Amino acid sequence: MRIIKRPVLIATALWLILVVPIFPDEGLWPFNMPPTDLLKAGHRFTPESGWLSRLQASSIRLGGASASFVSGDGLVLTNHHVGAGAIQNLSTKERDLMQTGFYARTRAEELKCPGIEFQVLQEIEDVTGQIRAAEETGQNPAEAAAAREKSIASIEKNASEQSGLRCQVASLYSGGLYHLYKYKVFTDIRLVFAPEYAMAFFGGDQDNFTYPRYDLDVTFFRVYENDQPLPTTHFLPWAAQPVKEGDLVFASGNPGSTGRLLTLSQLEFLRDVSYPFMIGTNARRRALLAEYSEKGPDEARVALRTLFGIENSLKAIGGYQSGLLDPELMAQKAREERAFREEIAKDPEMAGEFSRAWEEIAEAQKSYATFFKPYAYFERGTGFNTHYFRIARSLVRLAAEKTKPNDERLREYRESNLASLEHSLLSPAPIYDEFEIVKLADSLTQLREDMETSWEVKCLLATRSPREVAAELVGGTKLKDVEVRKKYLQAKPEEIYLSTDSMIKLALLVDPVARGLRARHENEVASVEARNGARIARALFKLKGTSVPPDATGTPRLSFGVVKGYVENGKKIPFRTTFKGLYEIAEKNGNQPPYELAPRFLRKKSALKLSVPLNFVATVDSIGGNSGSPVVNRKGEVVGVLFDGNIQSLPNNFVYREDIPRSVMVDAQGIIEALLKVYEAGPLVDELLAKK
Amino acid sequence: MRIIKRPVLIATALWLILVVPIFPDEGLWPFNMPPTDLLKAGHRFTPESGWLSRLQASSIRLGGASASFVSGDGLVLTNHHVGAGAIQNLSTKERDLMQTGFYARTRAEELKCPGIEFQVLQEIEDVTGQIRAAEETGQNPAEAAAAREKSIASIEKNASEQSGLRCQVASLYSGGLYHLYKYKVFTDIRLVFAPEYAMAFFGGDQDNFTYPRYDLDVTFFRVYENDQPLPTTHFLPWAAQPVKEGDLVFASGNPGSTGRLLTLSQLEFLRDVSYPFMIGTNARRRALLAEYSEKGPDEARVALRTLFGIENSLKAIGGYQSGLLDPELMAQKAREERAFREEIAKDPEMAGEFSRAWEEIAEAQKSYATFFKPYAYFERGTGFNTHYFRIARSLVRLAAEKTKPNDERLREYRESNLASLEHSLLSPAPIYDEFEIVKLADSLTQLREDMETSWEVKCLLATRSPREVAAELVGGTKLKDVEVRKKYLQAKPEEIYLSTDSMIKLALLVDPVARGLRARHENEVASVEARNGARIARALFKLKGTSVPPDATGTPRLSFGVVKGYVENGKKIPFRTTFKGLYEIAEKNGNQPPYELAPRFLRKKSALKLSVPLNFVATVDSIGGNSGSPVVNRKGEVVGVLFDGNIQSLPNNFVYREDIPRSVMVDAQGIIEALLKVYEAGPLVDELLAKK
Repeated sequence: MRIIKRPVLIATALWLILVVPIFPDEGLWPFNMPPTDLLKAGHRFTPESGWLSRLQASSIRLGGASASFVSGDGLVLTNHHVGAGAIQNLSTKERDLMQTGFYARTRAEELKCPGIEFQVLQEIEDVTGQIRAAEETGQNPAEAAAAREKSIASIEKNASEQSGLRCQVASLYSGGLYHLYKYKVFTDIRLVFAPEYAMAFFGGDQDNFTYPRYDLDVTFFRVYENDQPLPTTHFLPWAAQPVKEGDLVFASGNPGSTGRLLTLSQLEFLRDVSYPFMIGTNARRRALLAEYSEKGPDEARVALRTLFGIENSLKAIGGYQSGLLDPELMAQKAREERAFREEIAKDPEMAGEFSRAWEEIAEAQKSYATFFKPYAYFERGTGFNTHYFRIARSLVRLAAEKTKPNDERLREYRESNLASLEHSLLSPAPIYDEFEIVKLADSLTQLREDMETSWEVKCLLATRSPREVAAELVGGTKLKDVEVRKKYLQAKPEEIYLSTDSMIKLALLVDPVARGLRARHENEVASVEARNGARIARALFKLKGTSVPPDATGTPRLSFGVVKGYVENGKKIPFRTTFKGLYEIAEKNGNQPPYELAPRFLRKKSALKLSVPLNFVATVDSIGGNSGSPVVNRKGEVVGVLFDGNIQSLPNNFVYREDIPRSVMVDAQGIIEALLKVYEAGPLVDELLAKK
Repeated sequence: MRIIKRPVLIATALWLILVVPIFPDEGLWPFNMPPTDLLKAGHRFTPESGWLSRLQASSIRLGGASASFVSGDGLVLTNHHVGAGAIQNLSTKERDLMQTGFYARTRAEELKCPGIEFQVLQEIEDVTGQIRAAEETGQNPAEAAAAREKSIASIEKNASEQSGLRCQVASLYSGGLYHLYKYKVFTDIRLVFAPEYAMAFFGGDQDNFTYPRYDLDVTFFRVYENDQPLPTTHFLPWAAQPVKEGDLVFASGNPGSTGRLLTLSQLEFLRDVSYPFMIGTNARRRALLAEYSEKGPDEARVALRTLFGIENSLKAIGGYQSGLLDPELMAQKAREERAFREEIAKDPEMAGEFSRAWEEIAEAQKSYATFFKPYAYFERGTGFNTHYFRIARSLVRLAAEKTKPNDERLREYRESNLASLEHSLLSPAPIYDEFEIVKLADSLTQLREDMETSWEVKCLLATRSPREVAAELVGGTKLKDVEVRKKYLQAKPEEIYLSTDSMIKLALLVDPVARGLRARHENEVASVEARNGARIARALFKLKGTSVPPDATGTPRLSFGVVKGYVENGKKIPFRTTFKGLYEIAEKNGNQPPYELAPRFLRKKSALKLSVPLNFVATVDSIGGNSGSPVVNRKGEVVGVLFDGNIQSLPNNFVYREDIPRSVMVDAQGIIEALLKVYEAGPLVDELLAKK
């Protein structure tokens, strides 16, 4: 599913040789760079004035996913799998909302979700000139990057102070452009409606990234401000009719990352270094948590959400990787890169400026490969897989970083990010110690396998078992208590240094090496990629302008496409599924998991109009992070909510195609039908269908 | 001996009730606060114009000790035990200069001493007003201390930049006054002459801190600049005649620390917490090194200097402690404190300002007692007793501190101290790994005994023996190599963090807890002592002006006194000893260590005029740090060099007395006699006696 866990690729020689359309539906377009020409030429669509700005203002950015306002009272539509963390956090042994679903018949029943934050984009400003001006001639990549970071930090801080908004600079085209995004932030988020996990994720991991599908992957939240529902002037009206094949539709969301403009050496790095490690790590974690879930219903409940994330990642990354392992796809990438470079070589001026860019990026990959693993284990925390470590790390670093001037801090501790960080650090979401011990022990085992000669590993694990150490670490921390975290949030470094909390101590132990590796990554890899990525982008602009869309960066984007079935292995796949199909599949599988209907659906079958569409597909460009994106028609009305892509869409990470790849949506009409007939959620439907 | 290892006390009820003289020879006087009235009233001495400034300009400050220029060509007089570190560093298995002594007949033979630094005071400026102005009303002690430290840092930095001198603020009267000291620094120091250790330390540890004595505790260095002997405009001429009983003499040196103005609670802290720990630590180290020295001559040579320091400290601190354990001495201190406080209580205004000072200091002692041991082990490094750790700690901290603004750094890493720090870090003085392992292993053992529940200790010593860990730590460091240190000196923190050097890793491991404890000490103890010490000082100034001299602070001071024998247990102790006595003692002890004469002295006995004085005593006030102080007569001519105090002088740390306590000097005439007749060092004598 399309939450951010990084993208996948399954490629066949076949579809690489298919003809590329003249006006492809490609592109995850920033709202200040809409694909006006493409829409006009390809679809004869020119949005009315206000169309785009309303879509932007109704769209929501949240941790690695997307959502939208769908009523004037702050009602928010997203996916169940996007809201699952919050839903699971609200669950207990006695009341498992993942199992039962949830509907608040009155506003008083709506449940507050801790630690969540919604952001709504207000404005984008191009600050490329300002940031480029901070660089000085003759600086090496690391120095130039540091100069840019300082400039970015001060731009963000000033803009935040002036506007009161969350202001963040996004680097597009690997540093070819810098845009300042200003978000309004909401933190009082309450749960309104969630279906049963069984219905939201019907077909389970087995059907994840496949189509046809029959998932009611929706959840509704409501945004509050001052303890009142937020009066939303901008929201998306609900379409009265379902989509038809051939309809033009749009998705607005926050795609996390694509690699279409990556160089060949960067793709090879993913293929040879990064993905194998991520796949290996996720595979062992899946085995571990599956085993843990077997222990009993409590354990299963606690592990569910994490296990879903792991399985989702594993499938996604496995998909990307199989694409990168396909010699044909890489050959195509190599041809394209060669052609691009030959074009540059023809122009002596461009050749002088740009020709070394690919080599320098390739050298950076080589260097990165030498410390990728320690970087993953220590800086990214792969060796310390527990919430407690992440909390402790943030607290330890926050105290240290706060003593520095804003523009010298690590990015995530700058003033512009502090509110968000503190909000998440103070989340009272439950933590289950036994589960944390299991995860931590396994990650320590993995750490020791790969890093046994490291000083830190010897200190921790010289003679004791990872399980023993993990139990001691989890047993010796008080970070479960939000009040304790609050105290550390205010602490000076010297106070943190005197802590006897085991997780704080662990974070202190690994902080030097982690920071060292981070600096090395920034100096030897990221800054080199940024400098040369920007060079390549400038070459691209010279040759093609900005007709080539930038890669995804987790910022708000507009994409579009056509509702359309496809042919897979000679078999026609229709563009939509209906409730009828849902019941058929369940029956065919003996109503057994993962094709087991929630009892309510069994009871209410007769009330449902079975021909109502449930899911549909379109050529809309999307990637992990687009989960929860509202999908609207030409009039800007909600026709669905994006929740996945078919397996063939995963390679779109690197090469966009629209012959078979599809985004998968829950149909807006199916949502209404289920709410009315199965969940008897009349008031919610009234709110959705109310005319503004 | 009077190097700085902190002072001692042996007190008897008897001498506490002796009458205090009207004009005592008490006082370690700053050069800008000379005891003019006392000298005039007590000794009818008014120095000529230029007398004081010449003495100041001829005096040298070096690591915890004192010295002086004694020729126009940069020749420097100090003690052998002051120069012993340098002398031992120049020694090898083949050529043990401690054993054989050394004389450079020509300048070309003079031996460069690495890592030493001489400082010559140029100017003192009162900056009390400026620093007090940095405090703000309502600040707690820690905040006020931080504000003062910032002010001190910027004063030091500005003064250093303006003058090119080493500028350091000294806090007198516990913060009652702040004076800025400006030193010229010399780093090319070469060895000219040293006697045999046997002659310098005749009587050994047995006779240390006793009198009568027969020690030729002298060494001559020469200061070079641009590879040439420093032309010294200011130096002390050599007296033509020996002192007589009753002569007024002066010492100019750098006494390290006295506690005469300490409150009762501070004395109790020393007695109950600090001294017992220091004595225990030194006692185990003495046993360890004595054992190590037994292994063979090489081991003995390597351990000699360290063992001397430990024995010296042990004797000194043991002496102080026996004084503080004497109920009579403490009763006197209590009476004095009570009387002082009663006087303050009489004046309502003073009472309001000062009355709580003693209680607050007492509370700070209570707090300090709760973390004294971890502070000693982690911040002072008692748990990691090896040169390597000290080097690693400095390198790790230097890199981190250099990223901070000057006035926010730990004191020793401020710009004004960096040159000195770097000089010592780059000293090529030899380090002997096996010796380092022995010391480190024992300190780790001690650390584990006292701190076994600490996370850091568990990390290091969970299951392995201290000896094993020490061997691994010493074996895994490259810090012996000065070039390696040089590289780390230039490193950014992130580079240090990626080091795999075991000692760097160790320093990184303990740095957080050490910094935490240091901050705690500063916030809860030092700043409270400073605030209230300053209050007490202001009360003192109101009642007595500055007629009470400040305690020693390791800065240049002038003291004075009278050449005078004394009566000990009814026995008259003459003021001087001669070469005749030296030979008699040696003979009486069968010429066995520690009363064994160097072969040269046995051979040359007949050449010596045996009646020439060798050592003498005077009531001159002194304390550890005064070792090597030139002692001059009314004309400012060198009559001797201070090298010790008798055991009864140790309590002068807390209560000055002049009935029995004495400073002990090598007589200037004895030096000349030995140089000429025994060492045949004619050119050196010519240089010393040359008229300016």
